[in-house]
Amino acid sequence: MASLSLSRHNPLFSGPIPNRPRPRFSGPAKIRMSLQENAPSIAVVGVTGAVGQEFLSVLSDRDFSYRSIKMLASKRSAGRRITFEDRDYVVEELTPESFGGVDIALFSAGGSISREFGPLAVDRGTVVVDNSSAFRMDEKVPLVIPEVNPEAMQNIKLGKGALIANPNCSTIICLVAATPLHRRAKVLRMVVSTYQAASGAGAAAMEELELQTREVLEGKSPTCKIFSQQYAFNLFSHNASVLSNGYNEEEMKMVKETRKIWNDKDVKVTATCIRVPVMRAHAESVNLQFERPLDEDTARDILKNAPGVVVIDDRESNHFPTPLEVSNKDDVAVGRIRRDLSQDGNQGLDIFVCGDQIRKGAALNAIQIAEMLL
Amino acid sequence: MASLSLSRHNPLFSGPIPNRPRPRFSGPAKIRMSLQENAPSIAVVGVTGAVGQEFLSVLSDRDFSYRSIKMLASKRSAGRRITFEDRDYVVEELTPESFGGVDIALFSAGGSISREFGPLAVDRGTVVVDNSSAFRMDEKVPLVIPEVNPEAMQNIKLGKGALIANPNCSTIICLVAATPLHRRAKVLRMVVSTYQAASGAGAAAMEELELQTREVLEGKSPTCKIFSQQYAFNLFSHNASVLSNGYNEEEMKMVKETRKIWNDKDVKVTATCIRVPVMRAHAESVNLQFERPLDEDTARDILKNAPGVVVIDDRESNHFPTPLEVSNKDDVAVGRIRRDLSQDGNQGLDIFVCGDQIRKGAALNAIQIAEMLL
Repeated sequence: MASLSLSRHNPLFSGPIPNRPRPRFSGPAKIRMSLQENAPSIAVVGVTGAVGQEFLSVLSDRDFSYRSIKMLASKRSAGRRITFEDRDYVVEELTPESFGGVDIALFSAGGSISREFGPLAVDRGTVVVDNSSAFRMDEKVPLVIPEVNPEAMQNIKLGKGALIANPNCSTIICLVAATPLHRRAKVLRMVVSTYQAASGAGAAAMEELELQTREVLEGKSPTCKIFSQQYAFNLFSHNASVLSNGYNEEEMKMVKETRKIWNDKDVKVTATCIRVPVMRAHAESVNLQFERPLDEDTARDILKNAPGVVVIDDRESNHFPTPLEVSNKDDVAVGRIRRDLSQDGNQGLDIFVCGDQIRKGAALNAIQIAEMLL
Repeated sequence: MASLSLSRHNPLFSGPIPNRPRPRFSGPAKIRMSLQENAPSIAVVGVTGAVGQEFLSVLSDRDFSYRSIKMLASKRSAGRRITFEDRDYVVEELTPESFGGVDIALFSAGGSISREFGPLAVDRGTVVVDNSSAFRMDEKVPLVIPEVNPEAMQNIKLGKGALIANPNCSTIICLVAATPLHRRAKVLRMVVSTYQAASGAGAAAMEELELQTREVLEGKSPTCKIFSQQYAFNLFSHNASVLSNGYNEEEMKMVKETRKIWNDKDVKVTATCIRVPVMRAHAESVNLQFERPLDEDTARDILKNAPGVVVIDDRESNHFPTPLEVSNKDDVAVGRIRRDLSQDGNQGLDIFVCGDQIRKGAALNAIQIAEMLL
C-alpha cells in the first residue's frame, strides 16, 4: 500500500485531501463521538483495498457513529494492522462467522466475495451495502443513489438482514448530475462518453499508472500487469469484457443501471467507456435529449440547487470541472452546460461531469446509504 | 526543440516512428529522387514548429519531389540550421518577398501569419495550403480532406495563386472515419466527444506535459505556462475560447467544418472537446444517427475498404484503437464499431476513432493536398 498512500497524499496526483468537509447530504455535521454504545456495529469487507480504505476515510470525515468496527479482508491480508480514529485494529480473515452481531456491512471485495458472503451476512441479520456488481440487477435488491432514489430502500430496516447495491461508479457520477434535469424535463436518450481514472481498477492500477509513467519518462518499457497495454501517456477502451453486442460490461452497467435507478424501462442510453491516465476521478461527457424543453439557464439553476452537485461553469475564464479538482471531494462537479446545437430548440443539453470515483463513485455513496438506515 | 525531439524519438511517449511507410493515399511509393528539376518549388512556413517539422518528415517519408525548398519562420527562428534529406538549410525570416518562384507553400504558423502572408503568396502565384483556421470558413477557399472531398479543389491549378485550407485536426480525424459511412447511410446527427493530445497546442505544450509529469512525480508543483492549469494526471475542457453559445472554438470548428466539407448545411453536429494527458494523437468517441439503416457488419466492411482508415476492432482480445498505436502513423484507426442500443434498429452506430494529430490531423493532410495538385 506504500505507493497508494503516496498517491493519496500527493495532492498533485489526486487533489487536496479535504479537512473534514461539510457533509452536504446529511446536513450539518453533528458534534458527537464516533464511538457510541447505541450506534450500529459496522464491518468493512475488503478493508485493505482502495475503496475499503476510503470507507474508513469517509466514516471518519462524516463522524459516522459506530459501536464497533470490524476490519475484514482475505486471508492474505489478515493480520495487518490498521489505526483508525486513534484505535488499533487487526485485519481479520473474512469467514461466514464474521457477521455475528454486525448491523451494517460495507462490502468492496469484488463480485465473487459478495456473492459468497453477502447472503451469509444477510442470514445473520446484517444489512449489506455492496459495492460490487453482484446484486445490482437483482430485482429484489434496491440499487440506490441517495440523492436520486432513496425511496427504493424504504422497506429496509436495521436489524433485519437485507442487501442494498451500490451502483457502478460511472452510473453514480452521471446520474447525480442528470437526475435533477431528468425530473424537470424527462430524459429520453443519453449519449455518454467517459474519461475514467485508474482507481476504478483498484489500488494496484493506480500504482501501475505511476510506475509506468516513471518508466516511460526514463525511456524504459512500461510494466503491464494490471492492464494489457501501456497506460502512461495513452488511453484505451475500458478493460471490462466486451459482450456480443459490442458493448463492454462497464457500458452495459450504465445502460441497465440507469433504467433501474430511474425506474424507467424506456430511457435510451448509449455509452463509450474509456480509461484515461488520471489517478482517481472520472469525467463524463453527457449529451441529453429531453421530452420537454429545458433551456440552459434553467438547467444551471436546477443543478446549482441539486444535492451532491457543484456547478463549475465559468466560460470567461475557461474554468470547468476537472478530475483533479474533484478528487477527494464529495460533490459531483458539472459544467459546460449548454444548449445542444444538434437538437431543435431546447430539447437537448450537453454537460460535462466530474466525480471522485473512489469517494462518491463508491465509498461515500455506500456510507450515505448506511446513514439513511439510521 | 530538444525535448520535442526527445518526445518524438521516445516511442513510449508517442509511438514508433515508421520506417518509410507505404503512402496509402497516393498509391505505391515511386522510386525517384526527391530533388528534381521539373518538380515544384516548395516553401514551409513555420518550419520550426511541431507541424512544420512534421511537414519535412512527411515530405521525406512520401518521397515528395521538389525543385527547391525554402525553410521559413519568424525572425526569432531565422538563422537556425536544418538538415533535410542530406542537405543543409538555413531558416529564413518570412517576408512578403519570400514567395517569389514558390509553387506550393505549406503554412503552419498560426492564423495571424496566414492572414497576413497567405494573400501575399497567392498574389505571387503560389498555391497556399494553410493549416490555420484563418480561411477555413471562407466560401471561396476549399476546405479539403483528400479522402473525403477532393472535388472541392478541382479548379485549383499549380502556377495560379490560390488558397486551400486544411481542416481542424479533430474534424479531419472524425471525418476520415465517418465519411465512408455517411456516403452509404447519410449521417443526420453526430455527437462527438474528443480526447485530444498535447500536440494540438504545439511543441511547447508537449514539452509542458512532459515537464509537469516529472514535477508531479517528484512532488513539485507543476509549471503552467502554456495551459492555465495542471495537465499531468488530469484533463480539462479544451483551452480554446468559449463562445456565447457555450461551445468553445474547437467544438464549433467541428460543427461548421463538417457542414462545409460534406457540403451539407443540414447535418447536425455537437461536440465536447477535452484535452487529455497524451502526447500526439487524438481519440474521438463518435455517435452517429443515420437516415438509412446501416448494420455494424456492413459498416465494418465499408471502413476496412475506406482510404486512410485502418480497422482495429478485436472484441475478444479487447484490442481497439489507442493514441499510442496510431502515433506517427498515416491512417486513422477505427474500432468499437457497434449498433447504438439507444436507437431503433440499425439507425445508429457508435465508433471510436484515433488519429495522429500532427500527421493526418495536420501535416500529412496538407501534403496529400499538395500531391493532388501535381
